[in-house]
Amino acid sequence: MKNIPYRIILSEQHIPRQWYNLNADMKSKAPPLINLDTKEPVTVDDLSHIFCKELSKQEIDTENAYIDIPDGIIDWYKTCRPSPLVRAYALEKELDTPAKIYYKFEGNNTSGSHKLNSAIAQAYYAKSEGITHLTTETGAGQWGTALSMACSFFGVELTVYMVRGSFFQKPQRKTVMQVFKADVIPSPSNLTSSGRAMLEKLGEDTSGSLGCAITEAVEHAVTHENTRYVLGSVLNQVLLHQSIIGLESKKAMELYDEYPDIVIGCVGGGSSFGGLIAPFMKDKIEKTRNPYFIAVEPTSCPTLTRGKYAYDFCDVGRITPLAKMYTLGNGFIPSADHAGGLRYHGMSPIVSKLYDDKLIDEARAVEQTSVFDAAVKFSRIEGILPAPESSHAIKVAIDEAEKCRKTGEKKTILFCLTGTGYFDMSAYSNYLESKMINYVPKNEELQESFDKIPKA
Amino acid sequence: MKNIPYRIILSEQHIPRQWYNLNADMKSKAPPLINLDTKEPVTVDDLSHIFCKELSKQEIDTENAYIDIPDGIIDWYKTCRPSPLVRAYALEKELDTPAKIYYKFEGNNTSGSHKLNSAIAQAYYAKSEGITHLTTETGAGQWGTALSMACSFFGVELTVYMVRGSFFQKPQRKTVMQVFKADVIPSPSNLTSSGRAMLEKLGEDTSGSLGCAITEAVEHAVTHENTRYVLGSVLNQVLLHQSIIGLESKKAMELYDEYPDIVIGCVGGGSSFGGLIAPFMKDKIEKTRNPYFIAVEPTSCPTLTRGKYAYDFCDVGRITPLAKMYTLGNGFIPSADHAGGLRYHGMSPIVSKLYDDKLIDEARAVEQTSVFDAAVKFSRIEGILPAPESSHAIKVAIDEAEKCRKTGEKKTILFCLTGTGYFDMSAYSNYLESKMINYVPKNEELQESFDKIPKA
Repeated sequence: MKNIPYRIILSEQHIPRQWYNLNADMKSKAPPLINLDTKEPVTVDDLSHIFCKELSKQEIDTENAYIDIPDGIIDWYKTCRPSPLVRAYALEKELDTPAKIYYKFEGNNTSGSHKLNSAIAQAYYAKSEGITHLTTETGAGQWGTALSMACSFFGVELTVYMVRGSFFQKPQRKTVMQVFKADVIPSPSNLTSSGRAMLEKLGEDTSGSLGCAITEAVEHAVTHENTRYVLGSVLNQVLLHQSIIGLESKKAMELYDEYPDIVIGCVGGGSSFGGLIAPFMKDKIEKTRNPYFIAVEPTSCPTLTRGKYAYDFCDVGRITPLAKMYTLGNGFIPSADHAGGLRYHGMSPIVSKLYDDKLIDEARAVEQTSVFDAAVKFSRIEGILPAPESSHAIKVAIDEAEKCRKTGEKKTILFCLTGTGYFDMSAYSNYLESKMINYVPKNEELQESFDKIPKA
Repeated sequence: MKNIPYRIILSEQHIPRQWYNLNADMKSKAPPLINLDTKEPVTVDDLSHIFCKELSKQEIDTENAYIDIPDGIIDWYKTCRPSPLVRAYALEKELDTPAKIYYKFEGNNTSGSHKLNSAIAQAYYAKSEGITHLTTETGAGQWGTALSMACSFFGVELTVYMVRGSFFQKPQRKTVMQVFKADVIPSPSNLTSSGRAMLEKLGEDTSGSLGCAITEAVEHAVTHENTRYVLGSVLNQVLLHQSIIGLESKKAMELYDEYPDIVIGCVGGGSSFGGLIAPFMKDKIEKTRNPYFIAVEPTSCPTLTRGKYAYDFCDVGRITPLAKMYTLGNGFIPSADHAGGLRYHGMSPIVSKLYDDKLIDEARAVEQTSVFDAAVKFSRIEGILPAPESSHAIKVAIDEAEKCRKTGEKKTILFCLTGTGYFDMSAYSNYLESKMINYVPKNEELQESFDKIPKA
């Protein structure tokens, strides 16, 4: 056997004690969120009506490159971290490629994904600031599950506005959140004025969207005492927490004198990808290394590949601050694609800025059926059934490894396997029965949606 | 923080290179399987029409205490082993107990349970003997999933007879097996003569049973070329493979000078429990240590606590050899209890013998609702959503830790968390909605079933 083990699992004393704040090291910072009333960059005071104070500080911090992780968070990280970095020996052999393939596996916890990294942090800060209740939205259910677990750990109440389509199509996900004591509400709902307005406009049969659910969750938070809103992606604070993915990956690779030539991740709101690339991007910015970064998105929700780089709202109800990001327009309702976690109209301002500055080298949109081809192949060879979201990265990792077979290049490929697909079996079943279709929005559809982006 | 980490994960070079064959060290051996025709103990030749040759040898081996694990099996064990031994710090704190609680977590793989340990071994031997097709049965679906994965790893075809009730209630499980290329058939089926007979007798609406499905899978194997049958529990060979659970647990505890005072496991066919206790039982037999062993079963299928210790068939169709075991009678059809993996009429001959000899100190039957009380509590505190089967052990571990709180005893408790409950959400939903009922078979019902046990 080779010297590099199948799974590199660091011991718990190797859990990073600081997150890495990439924005502080970016020579050209991600543009700040803008307060709707003042038209100025948001302040901690502006944000702390919506978010916890410490998280508000993290959101606008462009000074401190490293931020200490409190012991109370480390204690819970120990339940599932460090996560394994897996050398995909079996996949390499099957593909007959000279490339070395590594994946950071974030799915080995009950929430089933990387989302727990930020959920634990956000619930911890809420508890420590005396917040008794949190609200959030969830699409596919990964974030809602992660936050339910974290709130259960710290004894904080939680209301989850779950995208209506998922609520009824994924009763299992709903039940998992309920096991962890969350109150799960299908969105749009009758509980908020924004929800009632959306129901009136869209009808009871609407499948909802993440943008709608965000509006409801924010309204709930700002209209209740001791309640704050938390978000599982897009925000700078979330990318900060997710930097633990990249930090652990880098540390594990260094142990074996490895460094990735290509770093690949799926992007929805951009949090896992932003976290994965963070410490490697530092090297690129400092010109000590030059890894090639590929962000992978679904053709059905092509934010980076076909969106505009502009200030837009994060939600449909237009009550959040404005964020400068690649966007399909805040009213964009994606097709009922199975990769629910990638169905968001916008993209992390940090990821957007890096892409605009060409520091992220490439965005690639892939079709759903090709993603499931890769997911099933990966399952059979590596023995892990991946989430549809994560499988976007697998698809491109396989493509890149196959290129190496043709060129003979011995590239080192790293991707993030963000989660498992145990709650996505109906999508797998559709695929196996050849019932899965690919959807690509038409130009006119996108143009109509772009028209709703606020003018500068 | 204390010196003992939350998760003790040994590195891959610590995967045991030999399984431990407890039967070889038992002063009084488990009685052998009996050939129906000769009325003599089965020989390797008898068995190798049904099983692979190497597995047939392992089945009757009472000589070799240690059996080498082939490299081809070790390679696949590396995908998920060594599994973590978790110190349940959070649970201890919540229970305010002086007891130390450890659990060996076998659920961190896509099959979701310990079943993969034997599935990999059985598929490996099949492949190495030129067998191209395997058949098996599955109840809850854990074994079927594990074997599907293993067959996919080694390129062996697989037909799974899935207990009819589970087939229709758990479409997700069926789809996972299909992802791994298995042919999944609801049992009883029209594909075998025994299946057709059972369908005629029980009707299309029957929910089936493990005993029925075994008969069909065995018939399929013996009537097709290059095809063998494999079983996921009960047999000596399966306990042998599962000894890796106990061996790793013991090694991990030894690193921290720990040794369990109480060892707890759930029992259906007895494989995970038999594997967990094996190396500790060696110490008890040799009188170097005296751990207290508790086997936990559901009140709805009370094999050890209310069954007979007698020679019985392993299947309903009465085509398997006779095994001396605790049994509720081969015709016993358990209630539609949610812990599908524990709904078997018999019990491993090794576990049965140890229990009869009082080397297993106690069998305890617990009610389903109390099991789910424990499962939900454990989820919220430890952050792992357990399988209903595994939660039987959790329930008793909590009970024993609470006893320690009352007595002040600092006992060290070890249990096996055999799997995760991600495919059991409808059971959790029933529990949360207070729709779950407890079922305890009446004495007359058991007596009727005992009457079908063959007379000596």
